[in-house]
Amino acid sequence: MSAQELEQLIGLLRGGPVSFSAPPEEMRPVFEGMLVSLPGDESTVTEQREIGGVPGIWMEAPGERVLLYLHGGGYTIGSALAYREYATSLARAAGAALFAADYRLAPEHPHPAALDDAIAVYRGLLELGYPANRIVVAGDSAGGGLALALLVALRDAGLPLPARAVLFSPWLDLALSGASMTAKAEADPSLDREGLAAAAAHYLGGLPAGTPAASPLFAELSGLPPLLVEVGEAEILLSDATRLAERAALAGVDVTLHVWPGMPHVWGLFAGLLGEGRAVIEEAGAFMAGGEE
Amino acid sequence: MSAQELEQLIGLLRGGPVSFSAPPEEMRPVFEGMLVSLPGDESTVTEQREIGGVPGIWMEAPGERVLLYLHGGGYTIGSALAYREYATSLARAAGAALFAADYRLAPEHPHPAALDDAIAVYRGLLELGYPANRIVVAGDSAGGGLALALLVALRDAGLPLPARAVLFSPWLDLALSGASMTAKAEADPSLDREGLAAAAAHYLGGLPAGTPAASPLFAELSGLPPLLVEVGEAEILLSDATRLAERAALAGVDVTLHVWPGMPHVWGLFAGLLGEGRAVIEEAGAFMAGGEE
Repeated sequence: MSAQELEQLIGLLRGGPVSFSAPPEEMRPVFEGMLVSLPGDESTVTEQREIGGVPGIWMEAPGERVLLYLHGGGYTIGSALAYREYATSLARAAGAALFAADYRLAPEHPHPAALDDAIAVYRGLLELGYPANRIVVAGDSAGGGLALALLVALRDAGLPLPARAVLFSPWLDLALSGASMTAKAEADPSLDREGLAAAAAHYLGGLPAGTPAASPLFAELSGLPPLLVEVGEAEILLSDATRLAERAALAGVDVTLHVWPGMPHVWGLFAGLLGEGRAVIEEAGAFMAGGEE
Repeated sequence: MSAQELEQLIGLLRGGPVSFSAPPEEMRPVFEGMLVSLPGDESTVTEQREIGGVPGIWMEAPGERVLLYLHGGGYTIGSALAYREYATSLARAAGAALFAADYRLAPEHPHPAALDDAIAVYRGLLELGYPANRIVVAGDSAGGGLALALLVALRDAGLPLPARAVLFSPWLDLALSGASMTAKAEADPSLDREGLAAAAAHYLGGLPAGTPAASPLFAELSGLPPLLVEVGEAEILLSDATRLAERAALAGVDVTLHVWPGMPHVWGLFAGLLGEGRAVIEEAGAFMAGGEE
């Protein structure tokens, strides 16, 4: 790790303009602007497309796998376009095609709109002829929670499950009950309890925060495909990841948890600035490319 | 996974003759006989050697890394010879030389004899000219606990730390307070609470079970090198691994936990019978070969 790179990034994040406590409609262009301004690969070719009636970004690939990516942003902000560089990097590392979904956002569209959209995209991929064992699912932050809720919903619907899933710094507990919510409050340069509580209220729209389909940490997890959970140590969401590993393990799921010291929330977004960002993309890509077919 | 291979192995383990509840001096030859009878690579060349005054088994390798291996057996049974096939497979997968230590066993030599021996071997490797960043440490079951206690002791002594460590189904809590002690009691074909309690009493020799140097789950873990923890889901020791991941993460350690569904205690020992045994050796080998030097 380059301590200097990391210090620089943490300074940027601490001073950053994105706050989940502010009105989502004000934060959306700010968040877009921040992510789109990050250095990226200009040669990447993507197109706008709809799958299962849901808009998003598509990237072709020679391989037979496809990555369904669910972006972060507290269920209230963010877009496939904002996460284009990150999602395409992940798909390339996995040797997979990509569909990054623009699921509907809260508060205009509270739960279960985002989950319904994720399910619709998955069904759409099956209808396009991708067998389930060639589909991998990934998401970060709220998108990581949405990815886990998607797996649970697919299992409950009796649909064939994707081959593997990767959750980056997933937000799995909208009740904010993890030990790291307090223990890492000082260390976390990106997120705070107040902001997450505001985003949770937008998404829940009056539902209890412990509702398993919105807080999938509390869902019954048996029968899920192999999971890789990547989390930074400097995150108030650290305990969401460690608790998921414990609960998934007890439920008989093949789960790998990797905790990265000093890393902030979804540090892979900053791969252009940070060696660990590139490393986590490589690790996740190798995981998504692996396994039996 | 071949369900048939696994069923066969679990049947063997359930009917197996090894019990930690029986007197160690009776169990030692039984345990040796069981492990030595497993299929192995006849071409492996090892020699008896002493390092740091501790006897063990040495295997040469062309690479520059060396693996210090600490065998399992509840601190009361087992030997470097019994674990020869497993330890040499791991070293080969890591491209490393190997020293598998015959640390002293309880009840004849209670804590801290085993830990003192592990420290003496590590110091011996440094004296032989292996820089710390070329040494990797691994162990299974009680040897996994001993490996973690070794890392803590080296940190406390201000010694340079090894590059990485791998713990297979580690026994980290001699107070047996994990949730899986009950939740996985039926599923675990190898271990039971009574046997572990007997082994713990032999090793502790009157010390409290929560003594951090004997139950390193309760040690302060900051500053340790990257850890890989491999554990089966069909183990009463599952929660030792998941709790370590959580505690190490909160302490800022780079920790990866991989939970393998359906796998029994230290299933890598049965690599000749089980695909997952070969897979865990490959995964651990790649981890031990990785990282900066």
